[in-house]
Amino acid sequence: MAARRRKKQETTKIQPKRARNLSPGTVAYTGKKTTTVTQLDIIDYSKEHYDRFETHNIEDAFKYEDSTHITWINVNGLSNTDDIVTLGNHFDLHPLIQEDIVTTNQRPKIDEYEDYLFIVFKMLHYDEAEQLTNEHVSMVMGKDYVLTFQEAEGDVFGDLRERLAHGRGRIRTAGADYLMFAILDAIVDNYFTVIEFLSNKVELLEDKLFDDKEDPNITEEIQDLKKEILKIRKAVVPLREVVNRLEKIETPLIEERTNKYIRDLYDHIIQVNESVEIYRDMIWGLMDMYMTTISNKMNEVMKVLTIMASIFIPLTFMAGIYGMNFDHIPELHFKYGYYYLWGAMILVFFGMLWYFKRKKWL
Amino acid sequence: MAARRRKKQETTKIQPKRARNLSPGTVAYTGKKTTTVTQLDIIDYSKEHYDRFETHNIEDAFKYEDSTHITWINVNGLSNTDDIVTLGNHFDLHPLIQEDIVTTNQRPKIDEYEDYLFIVFKMLHYDEAEQLTNEHVSMVMGKDYVLTFQEAEGDVFGDLRERLAHGRGRIRTAGADYLMFAILDAIVDNYFTVIEFLSNKVELLEDKLFDDKEDPNITEEIQDLKKEILKIRKAVVPLREVVNRLEKIETPLIEERTNKYIRDLYDHIIQVNESVEIYRDMIWGLMDMYMTTISNKMNEVMKVLTIMASIFIPLTFMAGIYGMNFDHIPELHFKYGYYYLWGAMILVFFGMLWYFKRKKWL
Amino acid sequence: MAARRRKKQETTKIQPKRARNLSPGTVAYTGKKTTTVTQLDIIDYSKEHYDRFETHNIEDAFKYEDSTHITWINVNGLSNTDDIVTLGNHFDLHPLIQEDIVTTNQRPKIDEYEDYLFIVFKMLHYDEAEQLTNEHVSMVMGKDYVLTFQEAEGDVFGDLRERLAHGRGRIRTAGADYLMFAILDAIVDNYFTVIEFLSNKVELLEDKLFDDKEDPNITEEIQDLKKEILKIRKAVVPLREVVNRLEKIETPLIEERTNKYIRDLYDHIIQVNESVEIYRDMIWGLMDMYMTTISNKMNEVMKVLTIMASIFIPLTFMAGIYGMNFDHIPELHFKYGYYYLWGAMILVFFGMLWYFKRKKWL
Amino acid sequence: MAARRRKKQETTKIQPKRARNLSPGTVAYTGKKTTTVTQLDIIDYSKEHYDRFETHNIEDAFKYEDSTHITWINVNGLSNTDDIVTLGNHFDLHPLIQEDIVTTNQRPKIDEYEDYLFIVFKMLHYDEAEQLTNEHVSMVMGKDYVLTFQEAEGDVFGDLRERLAHGRGRIRTAGADYLMFAILDAIVDNYFTVIEFLSNKVELLEDKLFDDKEDPNITEEIQDLKKEILKIRKAVVPLREVVNRLEKIETPLIEERTNKYIRDLYDHIIQVNESVEIYRDMIWGLMDMYMTTISNKMNEVMKVLTIMASIFIPLTFMAGIYGMNFDHIPELHFKYGYYYLWGAMILVFFGMLWYFKRKKWL
Amino acid sequence: MAARRRKKQETTKIQPKRARNLSPGTVAYTGKKTTTVTQLDIIDYSKEHYDRFETHNIEDAFKYEDSTHITWINVNGLSNTDDIVTLGNHFDLHPLIQEDIVTTNQRPKIDEYEDYLFIVFKMLHYDEAEQLTNEHVSMVMGKDYVLTFQEAEGDVFGDLRERLAHGRGRIRTAGADYLMFAILDAIVDNYFTVIEFLSNKVELLEDKLFDDKEDPNITEEIQDLKKEILKIRKAVVPLREVVNRLEKIETPLIEERTNKYIRDLYDHIIQVNESVEIYRDMIWGLMDMYMTTISNKMNEVMKVLTIMASIFIPLTFMAGIYGMNFDHIPELHFKYGYYYLWGAMILVFFGMLWYFKRKKWL
Ligand SMILES: [Mg+2]
Ligand SMILES: [Mg+2]
Ligand SMILES: [Mg+2]
Ligand SMILES: [Mg+2]
Ligand SMILES: [Mg+2]
Ligand SMILES: [Mg+2]
Ligand SMILES: [Mg+2]
Ligand SMILES: [Mg+2]
Ligand SMILES: [Mg+2]
Ligand SMILES: [Mg+2]
Ligand SMILES: [Mg+2]
Ligand SMILES: [Mg+2]
Ligand SMILES: [Mg+2]
Ligand SMILES: [Mg+2]
Ligand SMILES: [Mg+2]
Ligand SMILES: [Mg+2]
Ligand SMILES: [Mg+2]
Ligand SMILES: [Mg+2]
Ligand SMILES: [Mg+2]
Ligand SMILES: [Mg+2]
Ligand SMILES: [Mg+2]
Ligand SMILES: [Mg+2]
Ligand SMILES: [Mg+2]
Ligand SMILES: [Mg+2]
Ligand SMILES: [Mg+2]
Ligand SMILES: [Mg+2]
Ligand SMILES: [Mg+2]
Ligand SMILES: [Mg+2]
Ligand SMILES: [Mg+2]
Ligand SMILES: [Mg+2]
Ligand SMILES: [Mg+2]
Repeated sequence: MAARRRKKQETTKIQPKRARNLSPGTVAYTGKKTTTVTQLDIIDYSKEHYDRFETHNIEDAFKYEDSTHITWINVNGLSNTDDIVTLGNHFDLHPLIQEDIVTTNQRPKIDEYEDYLFIVFKMLHYDEAEQLTNEHVSMVMGKDYVLTFQEAEGDVFGDLRERLAHGRGRIRTAGADYLMFAILDAIVDNYFTVIEFLSNKVELLEDKLFDDKEDPNITEEIQDLKKEILKIRKAVVPLREVVNRLEKIETPLIEERTNKYIRDLYDHIIQVNESVEIYRDMIWGLMDMYMTTISNKMNEVMKVLTIMASIFIPLTFMAGIYGMNFDHIPELHFKYGYYYLWGAMILVFFGMLWYFKRKKWL
Repeated sequence: MAARRRKKQETTKIQPKRARNLSPGTVAYTGKKTTTVTQLDIIDYSKEHYDRFETHNIEDAFKYEDSTHITWINVNGLSNTDDIVTLGNHFDLHPLIQEDIVTTNQRPKIDEYEDYLFIVFKMLHYDEAEQLTNEHVSMVMGKDYVLTFQEAEGDVFGDLRERLAHGRGRIRTAGADYLMFAILDAIVDNYFTVIEFLSNKVELLEDKLFDDKEDPNITEEIQDLKKEILKIRKAVVPLREVVNRLEKIETPLIEERTNKYIRDLYDHIIQVNESVEIYRDMIWGLMDMYMTTISNKMNEVMKVLTIMASIFIPLTFMAGIYGMNFDHIPELHFKYGYYYLWGAMILVFFGMLWYFKRKKWL
Repeated sequence: MAARRRKKQETTKIQPKRARNLSPGTVAYTGKKTTTVTQLDIIDYSKEHYDRFETHNIEDAFKYEDSTHITWINVNGLSNTDDIVTLGNHFDLHPLIQEDIVTTNQRPKIDEYEDYLFIVFKMLHYDEAEQLTNEHVSMVMGKDYVLTFQEAEGDVFGDLRERLAHGRGRIRTAGADYLMFAILDAIVDNYFTVIEFLSNKVELLEDKLFDDKEDPNITEEIQDLKKEILKIRKAVVPLREVVNRLEKIETPLIEERTNKYIRDLYDHIIQVNESVEIYRDMIWGLMDMYMTTISNKMNEVMKVLTIMASIFIPLTFMAGIYGMNFDHIPELHFKYGYYYLWGAMILVFFGMLWYFKRKKWL
Repeated sequence: MAARRRKKQETTKIQPKRARNLSPGTVAYTGKKTTTVTQLDIIDYSKEHYDRFETHNIEDAFKYEDSTHITWINVNGLSNTDDIVTLGNHFDLHPLIQEDIVTTNQRPKIDEYEDYLFIVFKMLHYDEAEQLTNEHVSMVMGKDYVLTFQEAEGDVFGDLRERLAHGRGRIRTAGADYLMFAILDAIVDNYFTVIEFLSNKVELLEDKLFDDKEDPNITEEIQDLKKEILKIRKAVVPLREVVNRLEKIETPLIEERTNKYIRDLYDHIIQVNESVEIYRDMIWGLMDMYMTTISNKMNEVMKVLTIMASIFIPLTFMAGIYGMNFDHIPELHFKYGYYYLWGAMILVFFGMLWYFKRKKWL
Repeated sequence: MAARRRKKQETTKIQPKRARNLSPGTVAYTGKKTTTVTQLDIIDYSKEHYDRFETHNIEDAFKYEDSTHITWINVNGLSNTDDIVTLGNHFDLHPLIQEDIVTTNQRPKIDEYEDYLFIVFKMLHYDEAEQLTNEHVSMVMGKDYVLTFQEAEGDVFGDLRERLAHGRGRIRTAGADYLMFAILDAIVDNYFTVIEFLSNKVELLEDKLFDDKEDPNITEEIQDLKKEILKIRKAVVPLREVVNRLEKIETPLIEERTNKYIRDLYDHIIQVNESVEIYRDMIWGLMDMYMTTISNKMNEVMKVLTIMASIFIPLTFMAGIYGMNFDHIPELHFKYGYYYLWGAMILVFFGMLWYFKRKKWL
């Protein structure tokens, strides 16, 4: 069992590392996903125009800045910090922002700068081993560009890219602010999926709990669920604050007509929050529930013991009496002594049964 | 037991589905009640006038718009989203509102638009199987019309329709704002009924808990009560915020004289909230209570075992002594040896009884 | 036991009924105390004047309105709603107020109208069966009159009436606002008494809990205490808000010099609140405490069993050995075999005793 | 045990009495310390002047009013309410203040009047029997005088009086506001001492809990600690609000330069508050901790029983087999039958030992 | 075990001493680390200049005041209070500040004075014995100097001093305000390290908990973890308030460009706070988890006992029957009686096995 746990420690760890004792603004990657190359995925679009371009060369991204289109530069891989610095400096990002982009345990937040908004959030998903993993994502939204930085390839923006490619919805006719909204919207929609997955795990554990078969790992499973809900909370609760502030920010970067969408997003993140709190309460309550099922089972064990012992110990005593070797035990010489005793024993037997029946133990 | 649970999972599920990864504003129904046709129930009234009309044709509803009467259009069935879009577009409802109307897990909320208010709430009731079900209801209140959208036929507005038909109370003399209030009032009054039903279930479970007969399903029943109160909370807590904001909104859509009624409504929803919190605490406390009754019962089981074993094990030992086959056991040859031993045994027997009596175990 | 509980259900019910699905403003009595006649107790006073008058005729109360004295009309009995409506209409009370007067589960609140203040509160007391009962009381305070509405005869205003009759304190020299304060003050003072009674019940239960004698009803008694404290809370917590708002209201109905008294009242209701919270914590903690005492007792039971069994089972085995009928058991033929065995048995006996002593179980 | 508890009830009572159903402003003493005479301790001082005077005659205090010095009149004994009224009227104290001075369960508070501030607080100390007692103290601070009212002689102002007598610190050069601060500062410093005492009691109980020797009084001791921390909280939490308001009050009675000291006092009372909350959490957690130690002990008891029974019951059965009197039991006539059986028994014995060893129960 | 605990008491104590009943502003050291000499470590720097100087003579520090460079005077050792007063008076520190510098249990806070800011915080670290220790540190930040006061040598500013010496980062080009930030930043970064250490302890304890081997010290270890997290909280929670106020202070002492860094610091301290709350919840939950593992183990113990007893007690009874000495027991004389009985016994044996198998206890 110890072995099983040790294997899991890496993913169940709630508090990840932070590069410490460095000068503030130092860009030092703190995550685990180290790829050799930084990969850029650039989408350049307007109502009529659509262009997608993938590259490993940072400088390739610079030319899109002058276009009148909206440009979404998605960066996969943060371990190559020189690339991040190059891109960051080109877009004039403050050193503290560059530090936050590669600090994978940075909590979700929003920072307003004069020319751009900087938002940090977490992408959650259950991997094949049903372990909850979270990926640190940062986003910079400027006048006509959006930068997103992910730890590794793979994200929840597939449908969004489809809508961009095929011009579905209003995305191609709106600005960078709407793209920023759409990215956050995809993240929040994904949180609903994650919570539903968690909800299924809770349901399964509940059913297991009421099962007759004992499973000594239940305490551990409850503990793991606790950690998962804590991880989700760490992503969701601060994002709620981020969206709330996004709704109130006074900035020319966000158009009036996008506000309704941000309000809708806020409404959804509140709903995610409430579900998280509900599942938190439920998971915390599972331990108490498990405790009562254990006690119920022990009660049954004890009853079996008590009934068996209470019936047969007196009978054994009765047999012991007439196994004694005293010279003078008159009953031994009764003609039907043996049968009389059997009668008495059967009486005691059924008397005990009746007693336990009355006590409702049988 | 597992089978019983599996059957219930559908209704006890707290976190329902959300259509995900769709473009914001997409009108995709997320509920379970899929009917083939959308059914409209239209009431058109003023102080002197009363007209009621049922139809499946959306366009039929349009002609009431020009009337000087108040029009209440109640829509049953959300699965036919084209109908919702048709009606929504006719009344100029924002795509996000149309999305919320068919998103059955949308939490209660109020949105202010220039020409109308949009309110989402939940209709709760216990079905014949005593399972708590909730129905997603949306309401749009304009200058002289109220639209309500329900998942399926059947609601708690029967008495309200009666009052409209017979002109009881002030409803026929008041505006669309008072109709909106009356609808919410019927909902909140229904919450009182739901809580009373829940309160009876809690009482019954409590009595069961103190019963002598053990019932291994009690933990499950407590768990189900927890989920029911959580479901009620999810409907009630955000509605409180809705009514609070309704009280404070500055809009020409609500007349001054209706404000007193909204304040009264707010007072009632607060009362519902308090009851919900109280029952939440009570239900959460049931598990602890159950735990002590289990422990009390185990205590009694153990006492029976201890008393039986403590009395008969020493006696059996005594009989065992004189069942031995040593050549020289002088007591065996005493004339009254057998009777002496019985005397000693009776002494031990009553000594043990006295001991347990003193310990107050008997 | 079930019988005992069933009898109590009426009084232990936390959530009372509400007349539902009625038009807002409908005056329908929801309480249990139905008397055939409404009884009025009128006190008309000024510094020099004092007059007390009891009647069953509502119209008798109308003549006092024109007097320059302060008039306190106390109404006992709410089931005769026509009388309430007659009186209410005469004093120009809004239909919603009339509804609240007879809605016995209306929570404590204050409503400001132009010509009067409307306050709802709860009168608590322990009846002869030591059951906590609460009575719904409403008060209307106008320029020179105070109306109070009670469910039935009997209240906590005896001393206040004495002070009015004998002109003790400043009551006869002050206005209707001071009378309103004095009524609330009597209510709050009574809450102190109720809490003291509850505190004694808690103390008694605590002592019972530490008693040696087991009492299987303790869980139920704790549960009943929980319900009582919840009932008190439902009366006290919203009244705190009422008095707080009373302190802040800007109205010509309340004189400047009365404000100091209202502040004092607020101070007292806060104190009641704090006591309620403390007893709530204490009562909630009793269950945990009870759990440890049960476990302690079970521990003792198990020790007795373990000691008895551990001592006598090995001895019985030893006796069993020499009760066997093998042809060749040399020890049986030793001259002092029987005595040797006794020696060994006594050794084992004291060895076990020493072992349990060392373990501190004896 | 019941006797021990009954003795304690007086001191462990959380909710003390309140003189009830009296006219507001009635000066009726509610405490227990009734002395026949009221004792005054007057200190009159300025930078150059110092005079201390003790008397039982209230009128003696009046002459100090005209002096240009600061006068501190400390009153010991509140049961002689006439004296309190005489002094109160001389200093023009409102009847509600006079009531609060003798109402010993009045919670800490601050009232601002035009010419003085009125502050109520609690003096805590552990008496010789290690019981926590609290004393009701009121303070009136005017332009050049401070009145303090205590239930009985004995307080925590000894060092403060020393500093006044010897002119240490800035006290003699400052005004009545600094004296008021210094009195509160002595009270708050004393709270640190009380909490340290409590902390030691908690430490001792913790050590007891981990001791091997069982102590059935531990539940009671935890319960008593709970009550003590609740008592401390009742004194400390509202005083925090008092000092906070003291910091913000705009009054000519408090000099600008005293504000820094009041801020420092506020900082200290916050620190007391935090410690109280920490110890509250700790004490509440003790019950859970105790529960696990009980369960651990029961586990050990059960293991001993299980090991003894599991080893010797099968062996006894084996011996029982060959104690039977069947005519034909071939083994009984084997030459080494008895020794073979011993061999089998020893095998079973060590087999069981090995089994329990493997289960890590030994 | 008692001995082990007594040794630890000094470090596990949550509530340290406070010099009591002294005149406010009295500079009396309350800590434990008493060194004979006060040690000063002075760093004087500007963009071009760097000078480091260590001394025991307080006056040596005075000459740096006139330099145009930034001066950081770090004081190690607070027990020599005369030195603190000398330095404090030279820098014009208010007596209350001087008191706070040497009051080692002063909680983290910020005080604004006209010419300087005064900040108190705690330095945490795990010593070699894995005991969490905290050191009281005060900081005064003036126009071109920063004073820091520590209880003893050794701190977490090593990297910061390196950056100063080698001019890495922007520290040498910025003002005293940035130095103040950098010091707090080093403290907060260190909190991340401390929490990670704690997180490892929690992980280890969790693994221990799920181990098969029982460890009676687990309750104590959980209790110690509780105390550690409480200690961390006492340092972290108020520092959050400090940094929050630092962000909002309007003072010429802090340059505009430093604000971004303080905001970043605030973001980090919030993150520390959240981690602390998470670990607090986790550690509090460990006790419940431990409880279920104990109960699970007891369940297994009871099952072994019940199975052994239920199988062998009836068999022993059967053997006992035929060990009786009645004159007439026909079965004893059956030719295959002994074998028939064995058959019956084997039947009972497997019957019981089957029964327990069906109950899933085997
Ligand atoms: Mg850093
Ligand atoms: Mg990715
Ligand atoms: Mg969305
Ligand atoms: Mg389920
Ligand atoms: Mg929406
Ligand atoms: Mg969507
Ligand atoms: Mg419906
Ligand atoms: Mg209503
Ligand atoms: Mg009941
Ligand atoms: Mg009402
Ligand atoms: Mg609660
Ligand atoms: Mg109604
Ligand atoms: Mg009455
Ligand atoms: Mg009063
Ligand atoms: Mg008590
Ligand atoms: Mg008591
Ligand atoms: Mg008072
Ligand atoms: Mg609990
Ligand atoms: Mg009174
Ligand atoms: Mg005193
Ligand atoms: Mg102080
Ligand atoms: Mg300790
Ligand atoms: Mg200790
Ligand atoms: Mg201080
Ligand atoms: Mg001091
Ligand atoms: Mg140091
Ligand atoms: Mg930092
Ligand atoms: Mg782990
Ligand atoms: Mg940062
Ligand atoms: Mg918490
Ligand atoms: Mg618990």
